Amino acid sequence: MVFGNCGVLLEISPAKGYVEMTGIDAETSQDIAEAINAKGGRYLEAQVQGSKTQAEEGTLVILAAGDRSLFDDCQSCFKAMGKNSFYLGEVGNASKMNLVLQLMAGVTLAGLAEGMALADRAGLQQKDVLEVLELTSLACPTILEKGKAIIEGGFPTHLPLQHMQKDLKLSLYMGDQLEQPLPLTASTNELFKHAKRLGYGEHDASAVYIRARF
Amino acid sequence: MVFGNCGVLLEISPAKGYVEMTGIDAETSQDIAEAINAKGGRYLEAQVQGSKTQAEEGTLVILAAGDRSLFDDCQSCFKAMGKNSFYLGEVGNASKMNLVLQLMAGVTLAGLAEGMALADRAGLQQKDVLEVLELTSLACPTILEKGKAIIEGGFPTHLPLQHMQKDLKLSLYMGDQLEQPLPLTASTNELFKHAKRLGYGEHDASAVYIRARF
Amino acid sequence: MVFGNCGVLLEISPAKGYVEMTGIDAETSQDIAEAINAKGGRYLEAQVQGSKTQAEEGTLVILAAGDRSLFDDCQSCFKAMGKNSFYLGEVGNASKMNLVLQLMAGVTLAGLAEGMALADRAGLQQKDVLEVLELTSLACPTILEKGKAIIEGGFPTHLPLQHMQKDLKLSLYMGDQLEQPLPLTASTNELFKHAKRLGYGEHDASAVYIRARF
Amino acid sequence: MVFGNCGVLLEISPAKGYVEMTGIDAETSQDIAEAINAKGGRYLEAQVQGSKTQAEEGTLVILAAGDRSLFDDCQSCFKAMGKNSFYLGEVGNASKMNLVLQLMAGVTLAGLAEGMALADRAGLQQKDVLEVLELTSLACPTILEKGKAIIEGGFPTHLPLQHMQKDLKLSLYMGDQLEQPLPLTASTNELFKHAKRLGYGEHDASAVYIRARF
Repeated sequence: MVFGNCGVLLEISPAKGYVEMTGIDAETSQDIAEAINAKGGRYLEAQVQGSKTQAEEGTLVILAAGDRSLFDDCQSCFKAMGKNSFYLGEVGNASKMNLVLQLMAGVTLAGLAEGMALADRAGLQQKDVLEVLELTSLACPTILEKGKAIIEGGFPTHLPLQHMQKDLKLSLYMGDQLEQPLPLTASTNELFKHAKRLGYGEHDASAVYIRARF
Repeated sequence: MVFGNCGVLLEISPAKGYVEMTGIDAETSQDIAEAINAKGGRYLEAQVQGSKTQAEEGTLVILAAGDRSLFDDCQSCFKAMGKNSFYLGEVGNASKMNLVLQLMAGVTLAGLAEGMALADRAGLQQKDVLEVLELTSLACPTILEKGKAIIEGGFPTHLPLQHMQKDLKLSLYMGDQLEQPLPLTASTNELFKHAKRLGYGEHDASAVYIRARF
Repeated sequence: MVFGNCGVLLEISPAKGYVEMTGIDAETSQDIAEAINAKGGRYLEAQVQGSKTQAEEGTLVILAAGDRSLFDDCQSCFKAMGKNSFYLGEVGNASKMNLVLQLMAGVTLAGLAEGMALADRAGLQQKDVLEVLELTSLACPTILEKGKAIIEGGFPTHLPLQHMQKDLKLSLYMGDQLEQPLPLTASTNELFKHAKRLGYGEHDASAVYIRARF
Repeated sequence: MVFGNCGVLLEISPAKGYVEMTGIDAETSQDIAEAINAKGGRYLEAQVQGSKTQAEEGTLVILAAGDRSLFDDCQSCFKAMGKNSFYLGEVGNASKMNLVLQLMAGVTLAGLAEGMALADRAGLQQKDVLEVLELTSLACPTILEKGKAIIEGGFPTHLPLQHMQKDLKLSLYMGDQLEQPLPLTASTNELFKHAKRLGYGEHDASAVYIRARF
């Protein structure tokens, strides 16, 4: 997309800016930034947080990092996509923030799946668990929507399971670079990997429940 | 409290009912139920879900199981404590439900701590993480309040860490009885145990962050 | 066996000694010791380390704790069973030592199973892995015998899988009492629990491989 | 070493062969093989298994894959280094086998460390544990030598801890490519990573014990 014969880099000049909106890791983003800056262009990485539902509702969150003036120029565009955008400083910070959030979402989701599996095994009604969850301080869209998906089965894809697993892998890679142990993320990654091998890679991430009930 | 010379059991008769509101496991609850039923009394187990904050706000959730008529008789009393009460059927179900919810809360909290530790190590501002979290589908009181506690340090006790660890241990025991593997809960339990050994057993459960930053 | 109407305790007198040779935890052993000492008898706990093969070969290891003079009196008997016996001091130490060794054996075995599963998936011959293992510094009877069992399948019982899982659970309980986190033991315990649920509880402990290949 | 201006590739011709003896992953090895084959040369990957002690004793194990005739030509050379060499077929198999063995060694070592930490916490003498281990079916050079290193402290380097952690990471990467979950390896990798962060990366791998005692 950026480099190569047909890459955007050929067209970059001091008058131009480039906004990278696909999910990439911090290092790749820094490589692109360097190449674009070398030709005088402005660069912004913009990572989008949210599911299909949030995209439809226009409530995506945009995490941006890099050239501040380009971020300001993109405001009207970002506002059309999501209610909020954040400027996080130097190139790489947006993808790092994205991975931190995905790590938390992945662990929470796998914990929900494990609890739902235990509830079922213990003879509790999962719909009772969900009804109670709605009233507790864990009530958030992720837990309520994914809890519903677990009860209904089928797992229509909002966020593909293999996409979640890839992000967990990247956050572990980031932890490895920084010498930050992440034991829970590592365990969670293996659970999603297992669900992927059971054939649920293209289903919704909530299909990690299948593995928990195995 | 129930058995022994001064236990309530001595006073139980067909006209009396007994409501157990302390956190006990399903088996103990069943033992008490049997003893009370044998003397003609009614028994209800009622587990309270919620933190100190929710107690102050009167938004605790009451999970009850056992004698249905006794549950109905207690309604006015339960309403004073929390906005909602659930009747979950046979004795033991309330404590099982409570452990399922604690398992989910414990895993979510440890995942939050691990993400916050990674963010810090990666040079991100934790207050930025929290600000973004508020806009994502993970926004729930547990994540936002505990995220705030992690940033502020100090960890004043809402729910003692050792209490959370005890509940994780009981949920693992429940999984063991039912032959339900709980790999993430097991990892999480070790993290809380580690935080306990580091001297944070009587601090708030969010102090599991200390271990993650170690 | 000890307590109750037909228990050996009734027959205990200052002239008698009692040797407990079944696998019990440290606390139970201490209870028995107290009861026997109260009647003037001598008490020794003796835990046997080893598999069916070692029993046949008379190479079992006997771990004993409690009354030293009773240990000395039992020497001829112990020598018939195994080539070595150890006196480990106060009551409880033999069962603690036994759990430490079972923890190490369980983790090593689950690691072997995981490596064998990866080898197979990677297209390597498992018999090549075993042949190489024999020449490395990991070559020990456990790894070589269990590696052979994994290749042959069938898993005829030398040490029942559910027995290993029970010991892992007891070692985690011991860690919990001592506030010693045991993350790897906790993960391993869940793997054996999973194999048990898949129906391999009465097969040999090496059947933990089945779960790894799942 | 291979590619670039001063790389050996420039000198490769149909009369020449190249033996890669540094630790590389399967993919890199395949890239080198292709380049050398394209120029008509023969290629062999040869991974060396063993510690500093084994190197001194000449008991290293050589795992080779690639060109069979080159393997045969190297026999006299390999015999000088180690007592045994294995030919494992197509390029990549030697490095895969090496990672499988390192995975097993890493898990076993971390399990030993965890058991030793529990023993110490429980008031057992670690030298007693080691003395008993020598007589059990877990008695192998790795367990006995590393057990001794744990008791002595100091951790003089035979195999650097960070080297072990790198191999665990590569085996997890291999598992990820093959969709083979490796929960125990993932937990073990985090333990070594933690020991690395505590400053023990250049000590012997047995220093993973420091983390267990933390």
